[in-house]
Formats: sequence, C-alpha cells, structure tokens
Amino acid sequence: MEILDGKKIAAKKLLLLKKNIQDNNVEPTLAVILVGDDKASRLYVKLKEETAKEIGIELRKYLFAKNAEQEEILACIDFLNNDLGTDGIIVQLPLPEELDTDMIIGAIDPRKDVDGFHEDNIVAFIDHEEEMWPVFPHALMILLESAAMDLTGKTASLIVNSQKFGSVLAAACDRYNIMSHIIIYQQRKCQQAQILASDIIITACGVPGTVTGSYIKKNAIIIDGGISTQNNKTVGDVDVTSVTEKASYLSLVPGGVGPVTIACLLENVLALNKRKQ
Amino acid sequence: MEILDGKKIAAKKLLLLKKNIQDNNVEPTLAVILVGDDKASRLYVKLKEETAKEIGIELRKYLFAKNAEQEEILACIDFLNNDLGTDGIIVQLPLPEELDTDMIIGAIDPRKDVDGFHEDNIVAFIDHEEEMWPVFPHALMILLESAAMDLTGKTASLIVNSQKFGSVLAAACDRYNIMSHIIIYQQRKCQQAQILASDIIITACGVPGTVTGSYIKKNAIIIDGGISTQNNKTVGDVDVTSVTEKASYLSLVPGGVGPVTIACLLENVLALNKRKQ
Repeated sequence: MEILDGKKIAAKKLLLLKKNIQDNNVEPTLAVILVGDDKASRLYVKLKEETAKEIGIELRKYLFAKNAEQEEILACIDFLNNDLGTDGIIVQLPLPEELDTDMIIGAIDPRKDVDGFHEDNIVAFIDHEEEMWPVFPHALMILLESAAMDLTGKTASLIVNSQKFGSVLAAACDRYNIMSHIIIYQQRKCQQAQILASDIIITACGVPGTVTGSYIKKNAIIIDGGISTQNNKTVGDVDVTSVTEKASYLSLVPGGVGPVTIACLLENVLALNKRKQ
Repeated sequence: MEILDGKKIAAKKLLLLKKNIQDNNVEPTLAVILVGDDKASRLYVKLKEETAKEIGIELRKYLFAKNAEQEEILACIDFLNNDLGTDGIIVQLPLPEELDTDMIIGAIDPRKDVDGFHEDNIVAFIDHEEEMWPVFPHALMILLESAAMDLTGKTASLIVNSQKFGSVLAAACDRYNIMSHIIIYQQRKCQQAQILASDIIITACGVPGTVTGSYIKKNAIIIDGGISTQNNKTVGDVDVTSVTEKASYLSLVPGGVGPVTIACLLENVLALNKRKQ
C-alpha cells in the first residue's frame, strides 16, 4: 500500500501560490471568524494563519466569545462583505450550538465565500456554473488524483453525513469521469456489498473505524476525509491497520486531507483577489 | 433484447390512481398553460387531457397566443398559485423564444410545481428533502426498474443536455444505489469508452442516433428519454436497429417514457391534492 502524502502535495501547491503572489505583487486577504474557545478550532485557525503568512496572504482574525449573539456575528459578516480590503471570508466550524450555522454561512456574500459552503455556490458548482472549487471536496479529489492513474470509469462509494455534501462530492467525481454513489454514514452497513465492489472509497463522516479491511476490495484507493479526536489524538475514518494489506493507496489523517485543504483554501483566496481586479 | 413497455407500465399505474381517486372521493385539478400553436405541444397536452379525464383528474387549459406577453402569462400563474381549486400547474415546454422560460417556471409556487422543474424543488430533491419525484426522471427510473433486476452497484452513463438535469438524474440513480456519471451530449464522443463500459445507459438529449450499437456493451440496459421528430415521425435518441443484437433491455420511443411520464405527472397531481387536505 502506498501513502498519498498530503503534506508533500500541499507544499508543492503552496510554493506555486507564493510565487504567483510575489510575481503579481498582490496582497490577498482572508477574514476568519472564530467563535468560542474550542481547542481544535483554535489549532486549525493557527495552522491556516501560519501557512497564509508563509506565502504572503494576510489572515485577519475576528474573534467572538463563546456566548456571542447571532446579531454580533452577522454585523461582522456584513462589514466584511462590504470591506474592499477583504477578499474571502470563512467561519470556522463548528459554531456553538446556540447559533444558527446555516443562517451565518448564508449571510456571507457568495462572491467572498472562499470555502464554497454558500448554498448559491453549491448549486453553481453542481451545475458547472462556477469554476472555483469548494475547498474540502477539492482537497479530497487532489489527494485521489495524486494516486496518478486514469480515474475515468472507476467506481466510487462516497461515505458522508449529508446528502448536500454528498451531491457536491458526486459532482466533483463527475468532473473526473468517476461513477459515484452517495452512501449516508448511518446506512453504510446495508450497503457494505456496494462499498466492497468500489474501486475508490472516499469517507468523510468523522467517525473513526468507519472503513475497515472487511469493507474494501483488493487494491481499492481510500481517501480519508474524516477528522476527529480519539484519546487526545487526531484520527480519520479509516482503520489503517486492517486496510493496509488490501488497499493500493491510502491518505492518512493527520498528514492527508488537512494540509491540502489549507492549500486549496489559500488558492481560492488568491483567485477571489484576482477576480476583483 | 426485451422491450420495456411504457404503455403497459402506465396503464397499471393509471388503474391504481383511478381507484385511489374514486376511493378517496377527491377531484384533483391540474392547470396546463399552453402558449402558441406548436403541433407537438398541442398533441402532448391533448394526450394528458384524455388520460386525466379517464382517471378522474380535471385538466384545465389556459391557452395563450404565440405572441403573448410575458406579463400576461405571469398574471395567469399568479392567479393559479392563489386558486384553491388548482392543485398543480404545468407550463407546456418549449415556450416561444421571446419568453423567459426560467422566469416563468420560477413564478410557479413550488407547492404547485407538479413537474418538479422549480429550482427550489430540484435542490430539495437532490438533498432528499422532498419526497415527491420530479416527473420526467421518475418515468425514466420506473422504466429502468421494470427490467426487474437488482440495480444495486450497477454503473450508468447519463447522456443529457444540461448539468442541472444530469444532477437530478444522478440523484435519482442514487436512490437506486446505481453508480452514475453525467455525460453532456456534446462531449459524448470523448467519453465513448465510458459509455461502452456502463451497465445502463439513460439518454435524454433529443438527438436521434445518439446511442448506437458501437456505444453499448453486451447486455446493456438502455432507457431512451429522447423525443424528437424526424421525417414526421416521433423518434428517440437510440438507433434501435444497431443496438438490438447487443442490448438486454430497451425502452422505445414512442411507447416508452411518454406514457409513463403522463402517469407520473397525474400521480403527482393526486399527491399535491392530498397534501392540501
């Protein structure tokens, strides 16, 4: 089994971005809204901040207390939507339960929705009316592509938490001519036979141990998009030990989708910066 | 090769609907907006009218001249949206070129959009938030299902004219655990290898001869959703002669998707009538 190295892929991408930013003499700016003091969220923002700085993107943090009111956050988004100096806006998820995540994400101007989470952008991506990729599906497909084989006509099971995300991922597979099928996490056991027959498995449900050796066929390619914490360690959805003998390629967590996601995010910030010019 | 008989499937469905309408003593009503004097459109409306009458659904026609103003049609839709006696509204397509089809379809109250063409209903269907099926994809899947085999894990190439319709059809395949891939008609030649490897081919582009024997693998199931006129005859997308020796099942045009579509439409009218009670 070969490991698909997310750090290496990200490093290459970041080098190109850095050069592009220097050559064009631009100063792309990303606004990050962070609510509360969730340890993992703070870590992710810190990682984004360090990487952005490294390549010449300014990351501005807008911090809110855990008990912040919905209106405060919406007012901040409204300001950033109109701020000419801000190219992209992201809200670090998850938000505290008291807040309405859909409404907050929906308040971001679709033209500054650098994550590609806004409903309008999701629909536009599925309809091929928007060229900019949503960040997370992009990272998953870039990892998959790095297995460096012709993906045309391969079959993929997409194990996800929601139909909406599944549709975006299916549209992403479509761009690579991959035959895909969405499997909602809770129904994965009924669909074990189908997962077992797939050339590719992309999992992104955040439940450790979702994909084990008994779920995959010989030489399957497995892309792990799950990120969760178990015994104080960051882990993915895949049970690495049991798939090692059967899979042909695997992306690990950490060191897989995480760094590539950050690189894709920063790539989109630069793209939005160029669009406004 | 076995023919998937749309007339037979539709007749069964209509019988059940008729019984359901009689048993529940309801009077479902469908409004049909028809603009201009396109011969094919008039024929389709007439077929719907006769079938509706047969099973106890009232079909009310709202006829407009070919040069009708957009505003006249929108005013009619506005009236029908608010009319308690109207359960469902359809606009017979295509509309004359001078009219804005998207705007006219978008003006239909999504709760009365019995065809499932409204953007809100498309998104809701893809997200599994709406149980009522869009009529045309439903008819295609019912024909496919009538081949009476386990479709789980089969691969399907979907040859269509637009990404939007492709996404709806992919979401429909997903409900049957079929691995699918959207192929836009203009790109079909580059993707011949993939079509050739598919267990199922669903074509709906309205171009005769799109699917020939050299495009299909042995024992493929072919669902023809294309309807066009050639030499004064109604024909589908499939070149029947050349696929006969290779395909295992084929739905013909006429006598395939057409009658099933009408049955599915009337089924939705009844469903909307029940929802308002």
